[in-house]
Amino acid sequence: MSDLPGTVAIREVGPREGFQFEKGPIALADKIALVDALSATGVGTIEFTSFVSPRWVPQMADAEQMVAGLRRAPGVAYEAIWLNEAGLERAAKHRDVLTLRPMFSVAASDTFMRKNTNRTVEERLEELPGWAARYRALGMDWLDAGVMAAFGCNYEGDVAPRTVVTVLERVEQTGAACGARLGAIGLADTMGWANPLQIKRVVGAVRERWPATPIRLHLHDTRALAIANAMAALEMGVTRFDSAVAGMGGCPFAAHKGAAGNVTTEDLVFLCQELGVATGIDLDAMIAAGQLAERVVGHPLPGKLKAGGNLAAYRARARAGAPAA
Amino acid sequence: MSDLPGTVAIREVGPREGFQFEKGPIALADKIALVDALSATGVGTIEFTSFVSPRWVPQMADAEQMVAGLRRAPGVAYEAIWLNEAGLERAAKHRDVLTLRPMFSVAASDTFMRKNTNRTVEERLEELPGWAARYRALGMDWLDAGVMAAFGCNYEGDVAPRTVVTVLERVEQTGAACGARLGAIGLADTMGWANPLQIKRVVGAVRERWPATPIRLHLHDTRALAIANAMAALEMGVTRFDSAVAGMGGCPFAAHKGAAGNVTTEDLVFLCQELGVATGIDLDAMIAAGQLAERVVGHPLPGKLKAGGNLAAYRARARAGAPAA
Repeated sequence: MSDLPGTVAIREVGPREGFQFEKGPIALADKIALVDALSATGVGTIEFTSFVSPRWVPQMADAEQMVAGLRRAPGVAYEAIWLNEAGLERAAKHRDVLTLRPMFSVAASDTFMRKNTNRTVEERLEELPGWAARYRALGMDWLDAGVMAAFGCNYEGDVAPRTVVTVLERVEQTGAACGARLGAIGLADTMGWANPLQIKRVVGAVRERWPATPIRLHLHDTRALAIANAMAALEMGVTRFDSAVAGMGGCPFAAHKGAAGNVTTEDLVFLCQELGVATGIDLDAMIAAGQLAERVVGHPLPGKLKAGGNLAAYRARARAGAPAA
Repeated sequence: MSDLPGTVAIREVGPREGFQFEKGPIALADKIALVDALSATGVGTIEFTSFVSPRWVPQMADAEQMVAGLRRAPGVAYEAIWLNEAGLERAAKHRDVLTLRPMFSVAASDTFMRKNTNRTVEERLEELPGWAARYRALGMDWLDAGVMAAFGCNYEGDVAPRTVVTVLERVEQTGAACGARLGAIGLADTMGWANPLQIKRVVGAVRERWPATPIRLHLHDTRALAIANAMAALEMGVTRFDSAVAGMGGCPFAAHKGAAGNVTTEDLVFLCQELGVATGIDLDAMIAAGQLAERVVGHPLPGKLKAGGNLAAYRARARAGAPAA
């Protein structure tokens, strides 16, 4: 019952996933205030924006202004994403502030890949050498491979663990042919298909094939199982997780039908606290950041701890013999 | 990875827990419509009202009218609760409709017991012989013992598994002295303190002491861990769960600070479906009941499946080669 890791590293992705999800504009100052609040929580990495075309994602048109405006905290890595070469070039101009990550994403479902990027998986793999060359020019000789729809796909249905391993083998082989090693593996439950047993099967299959390569999970809470899936991953010894403060990117309103954000950061940190797994994050500060996120977007967000409260405070009052609040 | 039970029995408690939580009145016809919708889902038991003083819980003043109005489905047990003899006598008048349960609740925390019922645990135990006699007069020679705050208490802090066993031993001994055996054990995470490891420790300690007595879990989702806690209980072979359609009794609005309902029925049924654990419940019908519950209370409710949707439909479309919705 205690094969759990001693420490996990959480990457906060709420600003990047959440702001693009909002229908109305969010003021630059509010976005920066949220990232600054996150910087003070002890979280090690914050993925805070996307360098994408403002024509397609107007909410991210202020990426450069965010870079300029945020208050950099010592020890925090600030990350962003990009979808094409132009985006990477924009991001690379800010290497003094940004931590670049040599991402290469591919789906475990060909249909999802085509719907999402207008490419087949094979066509996507043909682009790998170009990305590897650009990353190498920036000093990175490895790939951080992300598998979208790794646990299931709205178009193709269930995804077998073997399919995930196969697509990662294709990335590894294609990378090896151009001198880019497989440095890390991300498994994304993009559409909320995972369950705890499936998590164990997929993580187990990937770990068996690449025992020394770190695995990061990216779990959407579309169907209520994200925390249970994180628990299953912890039981498998996974030590890297993406999560979103307050569950940004989702909304409990039925109007946002089916949409759901990543697993909520403060809820995941609470789970870890209760299990004795260190995160380096001040849970009370993260709860306050979650409350700020809710004010910034102007509607309820799904996370529970921002209303339920940290048990540490109740324990301290109980020990002191003081009445509960 | 598959020591999971083949079948679990879910008791729907949403109407009983949820309606009393609402600030405004809910029309009798709407309450009955929700219970009738639940009756058509295949759920085996519905706890639908409380026989309590209308002075203290005005939302439950229509208990008799609900009994008269609901459409009884074959194979469904309709249950209610009571807090005193007067309530039991009211309920017992409807034995043709109601399934009476010989409940006896006690807390694992003396402070919570006093705050909640104005009695110490010892004073509560002194009432046991009176309850046992009344239940015996109604033909029930056992007690369905419920332990409140079995995983932690806002006033006393963490609760040790040994404390839960001790209070149950007191119930068993006191019952044995007046001819009432311990027939079932309910463990309630009344204030949302449980985590998956704690679930395993407490269930393990109780099971070791009473290997043949069924255990039922009642899990509130105050701090986001209810589904992960249910998963841990399933891994321990627990086969009885309370749950609330749509997560009734809770609300994502910050205005209802800290309040949280029971684990959401349709989310729990979905977890079971994905794990291959039978519930006898039609998930689509339960999702529709969750959507109805949200319309009846007139505000968002926390459950996820009513927005996220049943994966079974996606799987069927994927198999048919049809486009996803």
